[in-house]
Amino acid sequence: MIDTAFAPAYFDKNRQAILDDWFALLRLPTIGTDPKRLGDCARAAAWLKLFLRPLGFDVDILTPGSGIPVPVLVAERPGAEGGTTALFYGHYDVQPEDPLGDWQTPPFEPTLINGRVHARGAQDNKGQVFAFLQGVKALIEAGEPLPTLKIVLEGQEESGSSALNDLAPILRQRLQADVMMVCDTSCGPENRPAIVAGLRGVQHFTVTLTGPSYDLHSGVHGGVAPNPAQGLARLLASLHNADGTIAVAGFCDRVHPPSDEERAIAQQGAVTPEQYAQEIGCPPAGGAQALDLVTRGSFEPTIELNGIHSGYGGPGSKTVIPSTAVAKLSMRLVPEQRPADTFAALQKHLADHCPRGLALALSEVCVGAPGFRLPLNSPIFRLAADVLQQMDTRGALFRWEGASIPVVAMLQHLSGAAPLLVGFGREEDKIHCPNESYGIDQFVRGMTWTTLMLKALL
Amino acid sequence: MIDTAFAPAYFDKNRQAILDDWFALLRLPTIGTDPKRLGDCARAAAWLKLFLRPLGFDVDILTPGSGIPVPVLVAERPGAEGGTTALFYGHYDVQPEDPLGDWQTPPFEPTLINGRVHARGAQDNKGQVFAFLQGVKALIEAGEPLPTLKIVLEGQEESGSSALNDLAPILRQRLQADVMMVCDTSCGPENRPAIVAGLRGVQHFTVTLTGPSYDLHSGVHGGVAPNPAQGLARLLASLHNADGTIAVAGFCDRVHPPSDEERAIAQQGAVTPEQYAQEIGCPPAGGAQALDLVTRGSFEPTIELNGIHSGYGGPGSKTVIPSTAVAKLSMRLVPEQRPADTFAALQKHLADHCPRGLALALSEVCVGAPGFRLPLNSPIFRLAADVLQQMDTRGALFRWEGASIPVVAMLQHLSGAAPLLVGFGREEDKIHCPNESYGIDQFVRGMTWTTLMLKALL
Repeated sequence: MIDTAFAPAYFDKNRQAILDDWFALLRLPTIGTDPKRLGDCARAAAWLKLFLRPLGFDVDILTPGSGIPVPVLVAERPGAEGGTTALFYGHYDVQPEDPLGDWQTPPFEPTLINGRVHARGAQDNKGQVFAFLQGVKALIEAGEPLPTLKIVLEGQEESGSSALNDLAPILRQRLQADVMMVCDTSCGPENRPAIVAGLRGVQHFTVTLTGPSYDLHSGVHGGVAPNPAQGLARLLASLHNADGTIAVAGFCDRVHPPSDEERAIAQQGAVTPEQYAQEIGCPPAGGAQALDLVTRGSFEPTIELNGIHSGYGGPGSKTVIPSTAVAKLSMRLVPEQRPADTFAALQKHLADHCPRGLALALSEVCVGAPGFRLPLNSPIFRLAADVLQQMDTRGALFRWEGASIPVVAMLQHLSGAAPLLVGFGREEDKIHCPNESYGIDQFVRGMTWTTLMLKALL
Repeated sequence: MIDTAFAPAYFDKNRQAILDDWFALLRLPTIGTDPKRLGDCARAAAWLKLFLRPLGFDVDILTPGSGIPVPVLVAERPGAEGGTTALFYGHYDVQPEDPLGDWQTPPFEPTLINGRVHARGAQDNKGQVFAFLQGVKALIEAGEPLPTLKIVLEGQEESGSSALNDLAPILRQRLQADVMMVCDTSCGPENRPAIVAGLRGVQHFTVTLTGPSYDLHSGVHGGVAPNPAQGLARLLASLHNADGTIAVAGFCDRVHPPSDEERAIAQQGAVTPEQYAQEIGCPPAGGAQALDLVTRGSFEPTIELNGIHSGYGGPGSKTVIPSTAVAKLSMRLVPEQRPADTFAALQKHLADHCPRGLALALSEVCVGAPGFRLPLNSPIFRLAADVLQQMDTRGALFRWEGASIPVVAMLQHLSGAAPLLVGFGREEDKIHCPNESYGIDQFVRGMTWTTLMLKALL
């Protein structure tokens, strides 16, 4: 009998071995966006294959023919004949570790501090993936029957999933499933379990403005040469109106407001502005000022500046007009917004607003993937809500997350499976940031969820 | 008899020794703005003292009590009783060398390529200073009588001259002079000699916007958290109107247009927009669009963004909302603009326009120095024009440079001397940029100017 005590007991008994394995995976700096880390990504895929094979999985490591060949792992373990098929999707790549100086422990040397594992990827997504894999391992070691399990683990979730997208046509048959489990999301306030009913899509690219052939003396040339840094500031400022709404013509054409039911349920999971300010260190003053916090974070698109770099940044002063200026932009899209259309709208806006005398270039373009929202009354959501009620008497919330797992919409379409996104992240995990960490308690909850939900799917 | 052939002949005879000395000075990375380079600044001051003492100068190296103690060298050599006293001002500090990757030769390993010395400071100002000092040395070795010579060499011209400003009160008596020679400027088009009739003032500071306590996931927090990078772009864009004019209330209150005579003479030294684009690599599209190129570069103030840095700048994408964003701003001021007033206007504008939810801080503030314009018909300008006519039959142009030598206005006031700014820089010298260089021919012209002008002042 698999109950809520099964996974914690298994973890306690095998604690050191589980941590050793988890840490081994975290030590690999699998920054999928950086071609220099390709070897580490290949090592991570091989490591995962070695973990899955003894559990009875057939495992393939696939690399597509085009682009950076970051491997995709596809595994399958047959279950009860004619029974449910569960697909699990996760990613072993992580965000870049910079700014390195802000880490209190080395990002790729996992360190256990007060019950939390500190490392890049400790949560996102290696920690949550590994909790799932350990849950599966615990069930198999206990001789429990399981549904047919298909697993896809990729190394480019943080940078556009190009290998998995390339491989999709040949994977269609192999990935057919009834439900697609993903553990890459967070709990609600006060750690209440949450089922993700929607995600935003994402697209991103790099903008470069070029002016003079070389950095100029800003006294000699000030007022004469066009300044790419200043021009880029102006160009980026033009993307939003003063009230925080998006000013790019056509970008929001298909933005679709939430239903009254969605809006009401979403408010249950809302933090107050005061709680938010307490946690984040500044008031929730971003986005369209006329809308409430939950609507802005879950049901509205964004155009976000992830980085801008130009000219001098050292101590003191250097009076130059920089030759170039570079910005990294990413967009979050709500359902119905088509990535190709929003990209075209941005491209046109940037070209139309490019300041005099400067040359505009877009590069590293990832047109990206749309967002989605799922119906709240599906059988799979009812089943998941029952399992989460066992784990926490408060029951589960529904959440519409502002983040993206771009490949989920694609896999949903490809596999025919109903997405089920339940994860155990918290704000304090600081994913994508220096000092990312994941609590042992969160890891064990992930294992518990895995064991109970896989049994419920039988 | 000192004529135009004297300095070139001296240079040819002593070429190797002069280059050895010049290169020794260039090897010292005297970045006065960087506290780590203080030792190199002290070494440069000591080196200059050892150069001047054998020529009969009394030399003091002074360091003020407050701030970074970058030494100021003050030297004096008595001349004919009751005769003219010439003050020479120069600086041995240089701009930071970054971006280091863009240098074709190491910035502090001077390299002679096709008759040009490549190094940081090769021209600005070590090259031009050393041409003056070599001119003095040549005259002394030839037994020529000289005016009383006072020399001030500082190590913070590029970063606000704080030591020299601190020392000013105790230097007043020692620096009294009739004329103040400065060799830190450029020729006119086609290398025609130029007398600088005006300089812009300069002030600078660093702006920091802070939002979240740490970098946030831009999916989870996009549309909710305020984005410091985006906020800074918006704040900086607010400094100018769409037509390129300055939008900061009060900043331009005292801007004083040039006289008709100044305007007409300035046009003689003007490059065409086509020439400019050819040289710089982009059209002269900066500044107030309604004004011509010379007016914008010589007679208008600027607010220039010298650098902006926030968030991710590496390869690919990183979807963060950065915690902070930093910009380096410098302003060029025309005469009548009071630095304290323009700074106050900027401070108010930035505070008034600071985006919601972000904290604004100004640091590394250098309120700076005003600009100046000199009367064109002064006796010293007539004398200098005669000397330059000997050197180039086309005669001298007057120029109002857009650049600043902030300390000149202060020294003019302190010493009672008439400023005489004649230098031999060219655009191709790329001062403040990677691959700064100075031509041997320019260096020798600086020596020639020194020898002829010092004799003319007797």
